[in-house]
Amino acid sequence: MRIITTVAEMQTLVRDLRAAGSSIGCVPTMGSLHDGHASLISSAAEQHGTVITSIFVNPTQFAPTEDLSKYPRNLERDLLIVAQAGGTVVFTPSVEEVYPDGFASIIHVGGIADVFEGARRPGHFDGVATIVAKLLIAMSPDEAYFGQKDYQQTLVVRGLVRDLGFACTITVLDTIREADGLAMSSRNVYLTEEERAQASTLFLALTTARDMIEQGERSVAKLEDAMLATLLMVPGLAIDYASVVMVSTLATIEVLPSGSSVALLLAVRIGSTRLIDNMICSIGA
Amino acid sequence: MRIITTVAEMQTLVRDLRAAGSSIGCVPTMGSLHDGHASLISSAAEQHGTVITSIFVNPTQFAPTEDLSKYPRNLERDLLIVAQAGGTVVFTPSVEEVYPDGFASIIHVGGIADVFEGARRPGHFDGVATIVAKLLIAMSPDEAYFGQKDYQQTLVVRGLVRDLGFACTITVLDTIREADGLAMSSRNVYLTEEERAQASTLFLALTTARDMIEQGERSVAKLEDAMLATLLMVPGLAIDYASVVMVSTLATIEVLPSGSSVALLLAVRIGSTRLIDNMICSIGA
Repeated sequence: MRIITTVAEMQTLVRDLRAAGSSIGCVPTMGSLHDGHASLISSAAEQHGTVITSIFVNPTQFAPTEDLSKYPRNLERDLLIVAQAGGTVVFTPSVEEVYPDGFASIIHVGGIADVFEGARRPGHFDGVATIVAKLLIAMSPDEAYFGQKDYQQTLVVRGLVRDLGFACTITVLDTIREADGLAMSSRNVYLTEEERAQASTLFLALTTARDMIEQGERSVAKLEDAMLATLLMVPGLAIDYASVVMVSTLATIEVLPSGSSVALLLAVRIGSTRLIDNMICSIGA
Repeated sequence: MRIITTVAEMQTLVRDLRAAGSSIGCVPTMGSLHDGHASLISSAAEQHGTVITSIFVNPTQFAPTEDLSKYPRNLERDLLIVAQAGGTVVFTPSVEEVYPDGFASIIHVGGIADVFEGARRPGHFDGVATIVAKLLIAMSPDEAYFGQKDYQQTLVVRGLVRDLGFACTITVLDTIREADGLAMSSRNVYLTEEERAQASTLFLALTTARDMIEQGERSVAKLEDAMLATLLMVPGLAIDYASVVMVSTLATIEVLPSGSSVALLLAVRIGSTRLIDNMICSIGA
């Protein structure tokens, strides 16, 4: 496995790999890898001769009040997980390499980046869009893999790739969950034992709403009320949002349109840890 | 000469050309080509097996009050000029191809894009940065050529390329001038015969200040006064700015620092036509 730390080296390697006929898949991560990342890497390895996993804790997507300094980091463990999952290259640049002195550019994907997480985490998606553009320019992948857990992020990335015209397919794979349904996330390590037990309530709220939809419920208010009621069983859990919206635009609706797809979106705080989760549901005709 | 109209076709061609070992130079233009563009194309042709000239009148870099609808367009004439200058490919996408329905992304290069032209033409450099990024992603050139006439634009492009990490050298070539010193510009066709005669005053103002610097003048106030006095000889000419600033940052100064380089920047309006020009001067040690 090759470990690359500079953009120039990365671009030279990609050019050589392309000249040799290899297709390239990439998995952008902030490290602290778990089974969710491993599933992205192994899926990429099934499709591409080269799989580049980037590991970079991107400071610009953390708001000043957020958990950048305590964000979990463990490169040695991450390298092992990448290798076991079939990754062939790791791109792990320093902050100074990615954001040299004088760095001043920002990419804003309008609309989709301005609601939900975008409204609550100012600058977050600008940071995401800018780093993803930089990574795509550095790695020139044929295909980039993202987990559905950060659902709104996948829409921002799709918007970015469509708008700037990157020759890269964006593939979004299912959220990988713990046995009790908690979505795997690097931030789960922040949870105390008690909070960890409570955290499965997010999955319970999502499946409750999903089951109601499958049984014919079409009222968004009733679905959102059911998610809220489930979440509020946990004492001390603070709800940022529990919403049912259109799947591609995140537009709010009152009644689920027949033949459409919707996204159930949750963001809550348990203790000092903020958790998000989501589920996509198809509405019968 | 090949004419390409879609991003996907462009990216396929570039991939094929690279696989065949060709290096790629590109010259981004808004068409209405003149000898300045031709000099960029022929310089690119000396260095690269493939020279792609893009011709695209980018609507997003025009403010609502500006001259988008009357901006001169003549594709047939442009193609002839490209061919004569040694261009091998023309990329001329439609507005719908570049900005499809739902397009929502914008790139802002902070600092350098916020002063002079950026302050007077709101959104202009965001439009420039976004289209240049799109063109670089579509054409993947080894080297991109720009004219010095749009000096601040060249700094915005350099900032963009540095910040996003494009593997592309930015080359800025000298402004090509008419016999009387007027910088060639597609907008010169807007000038009436009388205005055209007056327009050479910009070059006179620049050379006046340059000569003063060569003779030892180091006071920015005196240099700017001399440029203003020269420009004000033209009745009805309106001055946007006539400034002496640091060459890379456009920072204002009071005294020219020894051993540095400065940019003389002009923007004026003659009748209804806005003209810009500039000159770079090295200050002796």
